[in-house]
Amino acid sequence: MVGYEADKEKLKKRLSRIEGQVRGVARMVEDERYCIDVLTQIGAIEAALDKVALALIDDHTRHCVVDAEGAERVEKVDELMAALGRFVAR
Amino acid sequence: MVGYEADKEKLKKRLSRIEGQVRGVARMVEDERYCIDVLTQIGAIEAALDKVALALIDDHTRHCVVDAEGAERVEKVDELMAALGRFVAR
Amino acid sequence: MVGYEADKEKLKKRLSRIEGQVRGVARMVEDERYCIDVLTQIGAIEAALDKVALALIDDHTRHCVVDAEGAERVEKVDELMAALGRFVAR
Amino acid sequence: MVGYEADKEKLKKRLSRIEGQVRGVARMVEDERYCIDVLTQIGAIEAALDKVALALIDDHTRHCVVDAEGAERVEKVDELMAALGRFVAR
Repeated sequence: MVGYEADKEKLKKRLSRIEGQVRGVARMVEDERYCIDVLTQIGAIEAALDKVALALIDDHTRHCVVDAEGAERVEKVDELMAALGRFVAR
Repeated sequence: MVGYEADKEKLKKRLSRIEGQVRGVARMVEDERYCIDVLTQIGAIEAALDKVALALIDDHTRHCVVDAEGAERVEKVDELMAALGRFVAR
Repeated sequence: MVGYEADKEKLKKRLSRIEGQVRGVARMVEDERYCIDVLTQIGAIEAALDKVALALIDDHTRHCVVDAEGAERVEKVDELMAALGRFVAR
Repeated sequence: MVGYEADKEKLKKRLSRIEGQVRGVARMVEDERYCIDVLTQIGAIEAALDKVALALIDDHTRHCVVDAEGAERVEKVDELMAALGRFVAR
């Protein structure tokens, strides 16, 4: 069982909306829409992806980390921090 | 004519690849893959979107800003900075 | 007792180094150093701050979240996610 | 002459305020203040640094890029994009 079990349908709905947004940006480029408008739309997609990522981190912390014990818990936090490091840091 | 005219096909190819990546993440969620692996994949999509954004900023600066003159150029830089502000700043 | 108890001296050392880096950037501006070099230096400071933030998140998860129980633990994760949201999301 | 010539005093004032904020965070760590509060404060410093960076990018684009010509302008945009790449992308 994964940490996001309970949020699975919500996550899939969000990702399907994001897929549509990416397709929309491709169409904007095809139609040669103004660069700045395309850029704004890409920013919106990244914000939506950030929200999905935060939901996964939330579920992982609340379930996988907290339910694990001893060495397994240490490992789960290690993995989470490595992922956060790639995610946050520049 | 838009600033990214010359890069149009390359941008469309990248966006279509990103669309596939988003679909892949939805499939990972459907298959209940491990949270951290899903998170890593989302990070990769955002990095790919950042590259598209940087390409658009590059083209906009090199063409739209530089080709404009006087008040129009000021306006083009204003727009670019507003977009960058939404993009970079937290 | 705070989660970063054991890392306190290391965190203080890092922050004092970051303070010096900020002072260095002020001096670069005073000396009218090239914009791009100043910008690069600011990026380095943000990367160093990200590392401090990740160390705090790590300690908070490993100690405050994991040591708490029941409603208190839920609250600690809520706080962490709110902080991450402000930190990660654009 | 640098692009941020006209904003020099304003930039120095902002950087001196940021230096004070970093010192404040070191004091929070010394006083063992709650991890989440320290984290929030670090986020505020990064937001302030982002604003300084955006001001430098703005000045660089408006002056250095636009005032340059031919090969020198190409080089100036190249430098700006390389800096932005380090700054934006994860």
